[in-house]
Amino acid sequence: MRILGICGSLRRASYNRGLLVAAQGLAPAGTTIEIGELKDIPLFDQDVEAIGDPAPVASLKERIRQADAVLIATPEYDWGVPGVLKNALDWVSRPAGQSALKQKPLAIMGASDGPWGTTRAQLQLRQSLTYMDVLTLPSPWVYVALAKDKFDASGALTDERTREQVKGLVAALVAWMERVTPRA
Amino acid sequence: MRILGICGSLRRASYNRGLLVAAQGLAPAGTTIEIGELKDIPLFDQDVEAIGDPAPVASLKERIRQADAVLIATPEYDWGVPGVLKNALDWVSRPAGQSALKQKPLAIMGASDGPWGTTRAQLQLRQSLTYMDVLTLPSPWVYVALAKDKFDASGALTDERTREQVKGLVAALVAWMERVTPRA
Amino acid sequence: MRILGICGSLRRASYNRGLLVAAQGLAPAGTTIEIGELKDIPLFDQDVEAIGDPAPVASLKERIRQADAVLIATPEYDWGVPGVLKNALDWVSRPAGQSALKQKPLAIMGASDGPWGTTRAQLQLRQSLTYMDVLTLPSPWVYVALAKDKFDASGALTDERTREQVKGLVAALVAWMERVTPRA
Amino acid sequence: MRILGICGSLRRASYNRGLLVAAQGLAPAGTTIEIGELKDIPLFDQDVEAIGDPAPVASLKERIRQADAVLIATPEYDWGVPGVLKNALDWVSRPAGQSALKQKPLAIMGASDGPWGTTRAQLQLRQSLTYMDVLTLPSPWVYVALAKDKFDASGALTDERTREQVKGLVAALVAWMERVTPRA
Repeated sequence: MRILGICGSLRRASYNRGLLVAAQGLAPAGTTIEIGELKDIPLFDQDVEAIGDPAPVASLKERIRQADAVLIATPEYDWGVPGVLKNALDWVSRPAGQSALKQKPLAIMGASDGPWGTTRAQLQLRQSLTYMDVLTLPSPWVYVALAKDKFDASGALTDERTREQVKGLVAALVAWMERVTPRA
Repeated sequence: MRILGICGSLRRASYNRGLLVAAQGLAPAGTTIEIGELKDIPLFDQDVEAIGDPAPVASLKERIRQADAVLIATPEYDWGVPGVLKNALDWVSRPAGQSALKQKPLAIMGASDGPWGTTRAQLQLRQSLTYMDVLTLPSPWVYVALAKDKFDASGALTDERTREQVKGLVAALVAWMERVTPRA
Repeated sequence: MRILGICGSLRRASYNRGLLVAAQGLAPAGTTIEIGELKDIPLFDQDVEAIGDPAPVASLKERIRQADAVLIATPEYDWGVPGVLKNALDWVSRPAGQSALKQKPLAIMGASDGPWGTTRAQLQLRQSLTYMDVLTLPSPWVYVALAKDKFDASGALTDERTREQVKGLVAALVAWMERVTPRA
Repeated sequence: MRILGICGSLRRASYNRGLLVAAQGLAPAGTTIEIGELKDIPLFDQDVEAIGDPAPVASLKERIRQADAVLIATPEYDWGVPGVLKNALDWVSRPAGQSALKQKPLAIMGASDGPWGTTRAQLQLRQSLTYMDVLTLPSPWVYVALAKDKFDASGALTDERTREQVKGLVAALVAWMERVTPRA
């Protein structure tokens, strides 16, 4: 099983990238997690889209299509989904009704320095994913608050309870994928 | 009174730009509306921010600071705020607690081709603006559904009822600004 | 397959009850839809709950447990879920983590007299259902705007396009139930 | 200045009632806070409304009209506004466009036992209040998480930092009322 990880933050030492790296190490045998990149995705512009998807967009769509499932790790900016992540999804959602994410099993986690654990960003994200007809895992939830205390200086997730949560989420995503994949 | 208009879409013939252009013509005497640009705003990256705001970001912040009020016109992408607009706000919201939009009177309108009139994007937008302590006008609301029928081929807003709504919104924003500006 | 219908409005001639009645007639062979009642559910009060669920609450929970899936039809009040419906869900969600709705396949539809089709109520509803770990069908969506034009004087759903949508939603819910039910 | 406090929970020893009682003691000189009751408000039913507002509803509407401002304290149920509170607001919002809350200065606070501080309930509440054209104070925010640690056995708010926050919110509401009240 191949999972594509997507990080909602561009910061090199991003906590959310740290969550994805932790997930790589905590995935069950037979499951691999690759991490996609959003830094080269241009701002969405329908005039550009009309000419053709820019290469980084086409590449992201293709990697999503190749993946069996997607795992998003996102910070919360201004009580919402980061523009960086939403902008990538705006490209991926197109053409309308034919998103690369359509019917794709997907799970969400998030980390932030504040006390509220990205709950609001994750809810907005679920909303846009429902529009794209994504099979978003309802639970469990991974809300990492006060992130500074849970990662070491190198950006590695060290908090044991959070590591267990990430491990549980990846396992639940694998089980969810098996459950919702149409029976042969 | 100077209002800064911000358009959530980059498309040249954007309906939302059309709403802002209509607002310029419908503003009361003594009120001018300039339209800001988001197309050069880079993706938000805290590592870049740590070095200093890129010029288009610094310019946008400055134009917001110079304005007496802000008028946002936004499409709805994937049941949410366009990433392009949210990304600009992510820059503008910083440093935390000191957004250029803090305590700024602001109104929202939106147009989309679909039947639901950007209601969901506007609600998400209000949510992020509350975080920034913006003085968002509670009502009236301008939800322009089925936009294709309301603009002409040149992108001009021709629907009379919508024109009245835009005029009413700008007038309400001017009154709101006078009301919430601290008394000397 | 047995589906429990829940109507978010208490009005006798409720459009949303009309949607559920229509769904009864449009369900595929072998599927029955019963309609639950919320009118006797008292206001949620933890002091009352501590003594024991009132009979109408216990009955609603039991009917949900007996059902293979749930179909909610809801109006939108004040851009949100009707208090009547949310109050019932507040009882049903308890004890925390053991809701009668947990892991239950569920679909949502909604009708209102206004132009925006209950989109906002449905989104808030999805949010609370995710908390309860419900398996909410991502799509299709049934948003019935300007309901007065779509029902006859007796409250029967007469609009052909909406009837097709309701039929499609029930069929999708049946397929969803078969898909997410754990394989023997 | 007279503020009407409204508590979103019916529990006798409700933390949110505790917040309102604390607010009474922390209000500036010249400001009084009364606490309204929701326990006798029946479930909203348009057929009942057509006959006339039940007495507890009429009374609540009148108390809101008499107040200079409103202060809501709410728990979060199922990631949303409690049905009890939303049901009361559904009555108060009517007739459409003529809510007793229209143009009323209002502030929100909330307490819950969980770690996320009612952030999601408060956002949903803001959404419905915007529909009613309420003048909701944008900030500061009072999110009381892990409430059990912040109240004593009698239900009194003892946490000093939270007491400061409540005091600050009431002071901000008074200033907001003076600011948005139309100038004579």
